[in-house]
Amino acid sequence: MERIEESIKKYFDKSVTDRERAIFEGGIALGAIYHQFIGIPIIKDKAIIEALEKVISKSMGLQPYRESVEVKINFDLIKGEKRHAYDYETLKGKHLDVKVKTKYGNSRAIVRMRYIPEIDFTLMYIEKIEKLRSK
Amino acid sequence: MERIEESIKKYFDKSVTDRERAIFEGGIALGAIYHQFIGIPIIKDKAIIEALEKVISKSMGLQPYRESVEVKINFDLIKGEKRHAYDYETLKGKHLDVKVKTKYGNSRAIVRMRYIPEIDFTLMYIEKIEKLRSK
Amino acid sequence: MERIEESIKKYFDKSVTDRERAIFEGGIALGAIYHQFIGIPIIKDKAIIEALEKVISKSMGLQPYRESVEVKINFDLIKGEKRHAYDYETLKGKHLDVKVKTKYGNSRAIVRMRYIPEIDFTLMYIEKIEKLRSK
Amino acid sequence: MERIEESIKKYFDKSVTDRERAIFEGGIALGAIYHQFIGIPIIKDKAIIEALEKVISKSMGLQPYRESVEVKINFDLIKGEKRHAYDYETLKGKHLDVKVKTKYGNSRAIVRMRYIPEIDFTLMYIEKIEKLRSK
Repeated sequence: MERIEESIKKYFDKSVTDRERAIFEGGIALGAIYHQFIGIPIIKDKAIIEALEKVISKSMGLQPYRESVEVKINFDLIKGEKRHAYDYETLKGKHLDVKVKTKYGNSRAIVRMRYIPEIDFTLMYIEKIEKLRSK
Repeated sequence: MERIEESIKKYFDKSVTDRERAIFEGGIALGAIYHQFIGIPIIKDKAIIEALEKVISKSMGLQPYRESVEVKINFDLIKGEKRHAYDYETLKGKHLDVKVKTKYGNSRAIVRMRYIPEIDFTLMYIEKIEKLRSK
Repeated sequence: MERIEESIKKYFDKSVTDRERAIFEGGIALGAIYHQFIGIPIIKDKAIIEALEKVISKSMGLQPYRESVEVKINFDLIKGEKRHAYDYETLKGKHLDVKVKTKYGNSRAIVRMRYIPEIDFTLMYIEKIEKLRSK
Repeated sequence: MERIEESIKKYFDKSVTDRERAIFEGGIALGAIYHQFIGIPIIKDKAIIEALEKVISKSMGLQPYRESVEVKINFDLIKGEKRHAYDYETLKGKHLDVKVKTKYGNSRAIVRMRYIPEIDFTLMYIEKIEKLRSK
């Protein structure tokens, strides 16, 4: 239903390029992932962590113009196996390494979120922008 | 590590019974599930929905004294397949049918959250309480 | 509209007492608060922190049978004033000290959530239960 | 502490312009606001709604390069006053009208999120981009 996507263009500033639109969608994706999933209980269990990575990837990949959402939860930063009822933690920014590829028209943006120890901050940044041959 | 669980008892009112503790944990589980997962993008796709059900079940089952967390997302209430970039919805209370079994000492509480059309509300309630033979 | 509240009783196990219902509602409140508000950007600024405490208190006090929701965000655990663009943190369990009073029929439950250093965990517990004279 | 902000530039693709960076930050802001605040209990009460608008504005304004975060919650779309214990609703995308101004170097991006009935969707879009005289 290309018509709906066309009809949405009227809300955007006319000067916005395909490249800028891809970047905008990438920003939305990262902000959304952090604030939706932070707080989920986790433990150092491959099956649980991989299932969570997959759900974040698949669900957030439904948003517009996402080409792929790759999610790695840093296993080494999770505490060990559950030894008592209160022995688990919750998903935090430092656990996340997320790469989102968005594609709009003739452009692809590759944006990333990962913990940067130097600034003690889970940084969201634009890793690469690619020009595509054709739409 | 039973000792940690014992040491936590001192924070609780002394008059709290096993049955009441199981009910309290059930309440926590339901409040947590609703407010953690509402807002996740979804579409009418069995693979995505089942993966999400499993992740909610496994992650929220890590909290203390959960025996099981059964999650059904009401497939019939989800809009059809994605036809354009903006054609998806987000998880809402009305989609959720969750049954949590908590067990503490000699008691099991079965608590539930599901949409009740009569009151247009996603109700959280105590479905059943069971007395167990032994700890 | 007492009728609606009466009509909801049929979903609950018949053996549930007023005291247990108050405890259940208290559990829901704590699980909900943690998983709704964790992740909000904060800094060590009295005006922002007090506004956030008030919003948590007022919004979560709308849920059923809440008598009061007292929220203290531990100011001493928040990093200092913002010195550069990336210098802020997000609300975590350790910052929260929440006391919820719920009232159902002839019972009041006072439940609490606060960080316990001994177990490095934000514990949710039943602090006190009170029998009320009359409904 | 300009140095930290400078040191972060190395993570970004070298070709990213100030204008693109402002757009990226705007996208992050909108994705974050939606997924952080959706689900909060609300009623048609000016004091509660205005307090919530202010908290969203102030807390999300702490993220990098936000010049302002204006939040309007559509009062007309909220159900009437609370008549019984279960008579409230939760914040949804359709309630939100958010305008974020981000500023990076010589550019300002004005991005917006609001419900568009035509597509039954809470759209995030780039409303305007401005070139600034100087940094």
